[in-house]
Amino acid sequence: MICLLYAHPYPDRSRANRALVAAVRDLPGLDLRPLYDLYPDFAIDVEAEQRALTKARVIVLQHPFYWYGVPGLLKHYFDKVLQLGWAYGTANKALEGKTCLWVTTTGAPTSGYADDGMHRRPFADFVPAIEQTARFCGMHWAEPLVVFGAQRIDADRLGEACASYRERLQRLAAP
Amino acid sequence: MICLLYAHPYPDRSRANRALVAAVRDLPGLDLRPLYDLYPDFAIDVEAEQRALTKARVIVLQHPFYWYGVPGLLKHYFDKVLQLGWAYGTANKALEGKTCLWVTTTGAPTSGYADDGMHRRPFADFVPAIEQTARFCGMHWAEPLVVFGAQRIDADRLGEACASYRERLQRLAAP
Repeated sequence: MICLLYAHPYPDRSRANRALVAAVRDLPGLDLRPLYDLYPDFAIDVEAEQRALTKARVIVLQHPFYWYGVPGLLKHYFDKVLQLGWAYGTANKALEGKTCLWVTTTGAPTSGYADDGMHRRPFADFVPAIEQTARFCGMHWAEPLVVFGAQRIDADRLGEACASYRERLQRLAAP
Repeated sequence: MICLLYAHPYPDRSRANRALVAAVRDLPGLDLRPLYDLYPDFAIDVEAEQRALTKARVIVLQHPFYWYGVPGLLKHYFDKVLQLGWAYGTANKALEGKTCLWVTTTGAPTSGYADDGMHRRPFADFVPAIEQTARFCGMHWAEPLVVFGAQRIDADRLGEACASYRERLQRLAAP
């Protein structure tokens, strides 16, 4: 089972994220959870989400990169769902041993994430908060899939990213 | 004017954050905005918030450190309020030249933020996303005030943190 937490505040305006979701949504055992559709009022059903996460072997976090991290609803999801005594602080961490794949798209091209770029730092500087959230829950951290410059990406490169996403997810979910 | 964005999901359960707020709330020209009280349904009044930010010369972000970053509502605030054409992507960035002071409390002591600590990384590894959010809007980034081990902090050390907070905020807001 794959649990795909899809956190796009404006899914209709997305091109890259929509294509990425379309590339994997028919994979067997994939539970697509479009968080902004499920919880437009941010009232997350914590038990339902914990059940969905428990069933999965692979947990995917997919979202556009907003203000150097996950969108507000996904951060709220971490705050509410990854509870003390469930995700951590207990002998049996609910997500221990599962694999976390982070899939994100940025507006800026790679060159924007550099000392002399518009974002002033390498992209890697913004990864620790997300990576350590997964690791603190005992998850394996797979190599992230980051699609840079997603706003102006051409069809070929988007197609490659989609193919790579599908291939990687199939491999991670293989028995 | 000081605009204090206070983002504590459970203010009644807080000891350290409550004391910190109490230490500064009577400062002249301080606009205390308890975000989880103002927006329990996450329906942020973007115009009201932009007005409040515009009036201020110093913007304080105060919150407990949750999953290596700001709580969900404050991240949602960044997503909604710091709009393209207002906060960035325009010749007149609304927050340009203001000062941002980040005030946060952690459950773990300093030793938890190290290669061999429970959080596996130095605390500084989690700062870039927040710092760069302020800098991208053209704000000056003041030295953050981080209160480690806030859950078990003794009264003396908490008192010192409060005094330091008040003193720093007075200094930053001085004409």
